[in-house]
Amino acid sequence: MNEKSVGNVETKIFRYGDEIELESGRKFGPIDVAYETYGELNSEKSNAILVCHPLTGNAHAAGWHEGDEKPGWWDNMIGPGKAFDTDLYYVIGMNTLGGCKGTTGPGSINPETGEPYGLDFPVITINDMVRVQHKLIEHLGIDRLFAIAGGSMGGMQALQWPITYPDQVKFVIAIATTAVSSPQQIALNEVRRRAIMSDGKWQDGDYYGNEPPVDGLRLARMIGHITYLSDTSMKEKFGRRLREGEDLNFDFGVDFEVENYLHYKGGSFVERFDANSYLYLTKAVDYFDLTNGGKVSLAEAFSDAKAKFLITSITSDWLYPPYQSKDIVKALESKDLDVTYSEITSTYGHDAFFLEPGQLKHMVANFLSRVCAHDVMQSDFPVIHKNTPIKTASQVIIESDFTHLPVTDDDGKMLGILTAWDIANAVANDIDTLDPIMTKDVISARPDEPINSIVSKISKFKISALPVIDEEESVLGLVTSDTITQLVRGEQPIPGTEVTPETGAEDKTL
Amino acid sequence: MNEKSVGNVETKIFRYGDEIELESGRKFGPIDVAYETYGELNSEKSNAILVCHPLTGNAHAAGWHEGDEKPGWWDNMIGPGKAFDTDLYYVIGMNTLGGCKGTTGPGSINPETGEPYGLDFPVITINDMVRVQHKLIEHLGIDRLFAIAGGSMGGMQALQWPITYPDQVKFVIAIATTAVSSPQQIALNEVRRRAIMSDGKWQDGDYYGNEPPVDGLRLARMIGHITYLSDTSMKEKFGRRLREGEDLNFDFGVDFEVENYLHYKGGSFVERFDANSYLYLTKAVDYFDLTNGGKVSLAEAFSDAKAKFLITSITSDWLYPPYQSKDIVKALESKDLDVTYSEITSTYGHDAFFLEPGQLKHMVANFLSRVCAHDVMQSDFPVIHKNTPIKTASQVIIESDFTHLPVTDDDGKMLGILTAWDIANAVANDIDTLDPIMTKDVISARPDEPINSIVSKISKFKISALPVIDEEESVLGLVTSDTITQLVRGEQPIPGTEVTPETGAEDKTL
Repeated sequence: MNEKSVGNVETKIFRYGDEIELESGRKFGPIDVAYETYGELNSEKSNAILVCHPLTGNAHAAGWHEGDEKPGWWDNMIGPGKAFDTDLYYVIGMNTLGGCKGTTGPGSINPETGEPYGLDFPVITINDMVRVQHKLIEHLGIDRLFAIAGGSMGGMQALQWPITYPDQVKFVIAIATTAVSSPQQIALNEVRRRAIMSDGKWQDGDYYGNEPPVDGLRLARMIGHITYLSDTSMKEKFGRRLREGEDLNFDFGVDFEVENYLHYKGGSFVERFDANSYLYLTKAVDYFDLTNGGKVSLAEAFSDAKAKFLITSITSDWLYPPYQSKDIVKALESKDLDVTYSEITSTYGHDAFFLEPGQLKHMVANFLSRVCAHDVMQSDFPVIHKNTPIKTASQVIIESDFTHLPVTDDDGKMLGILTAWDIANAVANDIDTLDPIMTKDVISARPDEPINSIVSKISKFKISALPVIDEEESVLGLVTSDTITQLVRGEQPIPGTEVTPETGAEDKTL
Repeated sequence: MNEKSVGNVETKIFRYGDEIELESGRKFGPIDVAYETYGELNSEKSNAILVCHPLTGNAHAAGWHEGDEKPGWWDNMIGPGKAFDTDLYYVIGMNTLGGCKGTTGPGSINPETGEPYGLDFPVITINDMVRVQHKLIEHLGIDRLFAIAGGSMGGMQALQWPITYPDQVKFVIAIATTAVSSPQQIALNEVRRRAIMSDGKWQDGDYYGNEPPVDGLRLARMIGHITYLSDTSMKEKFGRRLREGEDLNFDFGVDFEVENYLHYKGGSFVERFDANSYLYLTKAVDYFDLTNGGKVSLAEAFSDAKAKFLITSITSDWLYPPYQSKDIVKALESKDLDVTYSEITSTYGHDAFFLEPGQLKHMVANFLSRVCAHDVMQSDFPVIHKNTPIKTASQVIIESDFTHLPVTDDDGKMLGILTAWDIANAVANDIDTLDPIMTKDVISARPDEPINSIVSKISKFKISALPVIDEEESVLGLVTSDTITQLVRGEQPIPGTEVTPETGAEDKTL
């Protein structure tokens, strides 16, 4: 299938007007949340994927802002036919709490003073960020995320979700990240913060309206860039190539291409990022420790989690080395959680997260294809007993808003499916019991049946809903037309979407 | 054997009054050189080992400065019975050109202006440093170093020596270093330089007499420290331990012990080091490239080298990873040079250079024990033909200043050894030919015989000089009493040192 762009997009703002209680104990609000969405939310609101940006990202994860020269930061992963297929999923990008791209952060106006917060902004944690994400999800009317995904700092948020909201996320995709920031990671963040705080222009964070501490921020970013690359990738990319000519300058200007690269990257960064946000976000990363200072084991941290996990690391990533991902995998496995581990084979270092879309797409798409009937079925629906009168059955259908309902015997075993079309048939033919009118030759799915198989059945038999039954043929749930529509849209037309049971016979054979 | 301290020492200054031509083309001088020496130079001046400090070291490599709380920087390696055994070797420590510990650097007074050089100090290279080392060696009357040794930046100097002065160094010990600074290493140095240069107090290097750029220098050092440790060692040393109490501070002060450590180390460093020196030395490290920008292969770079090499890396060193040492080994092997490679197994990272004296001592001592007769023999001495008259032979002995000389036949085959005592014997007994008086049952050594075996022969047979002969029994050289004395002093008394052939018969049996 061809990959496409999600096209032009705009960042929206949701204002959470109340306060949240932060991990520090401080109450904080109101909070503006900048977000973007790609694809469409299905009627069950079950296909939402929240993607979390790394340290210095923003809500603009995919598509194009008018006039921009580059698409969103994860555009190679999000769009029709891409790993996060917007023909199937409703993808949400969001700027994190503490950021500087629309969501409330230290550069935002403090409503109490009318001035930017600066250091009056509270020190926040990854869990605080997650709780603000949850407010947005609630605002969008979503009770449960289909998936949460992110790399680096975004991966920490992805790991935190199934712990803070165990019942509200089905799939977790955490890339090139850790469950516990190591002392080396803390040390690297601390020198970056000191670079900013040592800049005379920083002024204890109160530089808004004056010159910002660009020298310190540039240096912080340069240090960061070194950690995002690998020794090997720097050799391949720059070697010892000189910036100008063949001779060394014998001064303290830029001699080597690698220096030039760092200066260039650092220079462009300071134009788009707020130094105080850099402080707050790196601090949140340092504080991240799912073991809570060793008070619980990492396995215990995931005690309540119910999601399925994809944990991915990068072979050459020395900032978030693969062993940190493997520690997460071990912890999840010890709790019998469903976890897939994969390594991106790359010399690019931490940056491979962005630079190896081929491998990452394959891993993510493969993982999401492990979605099974159980993951997408609805279990909150009425069941009709075989002896139910036609009139009562009609009322159940109308009140439940389901077009198809299973009919069961005294033991709960499914005997067939009843649709509104069947009711019409009964009325037309003066039939007053369910047995002659319901569809008995029912196509069903097992709970662990993969989504691809379900899509294929739906396509082949032109049905719009599929009961999920266990080994005793008890009905566990229904995969409804709308879910399926969302999950396969773009693949092939599903009759159920155009032709409802009420208006056409094509859908009769369930 | 017990290890001992070299005791109290003082740094001396040698002034090289002339100019040297630097790699940049600039002429520069005069140059003060701060140095220390430990042990005694033997009369052949053949037992000198120059140890080269890493980036921020000084001449004070071993022993104690009066009132100091710590000994010299490599004290665990230098001293009686230590790896660089000062009972055997004359060890020289020296502050590098561009440093700030006595040798001329950017903080030194420019004689032309009467002010500190600052950025008027020339940008220097590792080879420039080596050439200043050579001036000191000449000053000490040493024609040829027994060994050059160093780690990190000091290792670069060690590698440069046998290229710049191929005939003037016998053993090279290069630890945790590289022959070519990589782009990652350059990048890490560049951010450290920028930390200093971004400090407003740096004032384009013209801060002497005013407040120095301590914030920038501290930050540079903190970045450095991260690269000297390993992820594992930081975990073992600090973990996520908090500096105070059990709770996070939720501010931008120091939360974690690892941050505290970096601040402490950075803070103590700025009191003892000059920021401009930091710039110059890191630049020299960046410029270091034995392949000359790829114009020659690394193997070709060592074309003229004659030394024997010990190349040592550290398993957990990510700043100077083992593969860089292995590249050097491959290059040396391809030139059929004598090279020993060994890895220090350690989790300490680059710092293991200082923190694993046990392994390093073993490696260095093992390597130096590979010294053989050929390495320590003198080859510039007269040989006496068997038919030489007694009087002439006496004159040769007196004029040559050798107490023992070999007697050979027409083919150069050694027949015996003639000593002054033998001459006295001839005179006493009216003998006028050499044959009856010379010692014929001569103990000799092969050129590849290890020094330990030579020491053992000397001890066992109480001799004070040993002829080195080839397979045809031609005399290649003499291992003289003084050399041996130096190489075994402290092990056991050698009769030859107290009892000369002229004064006692014990030494008669050679």
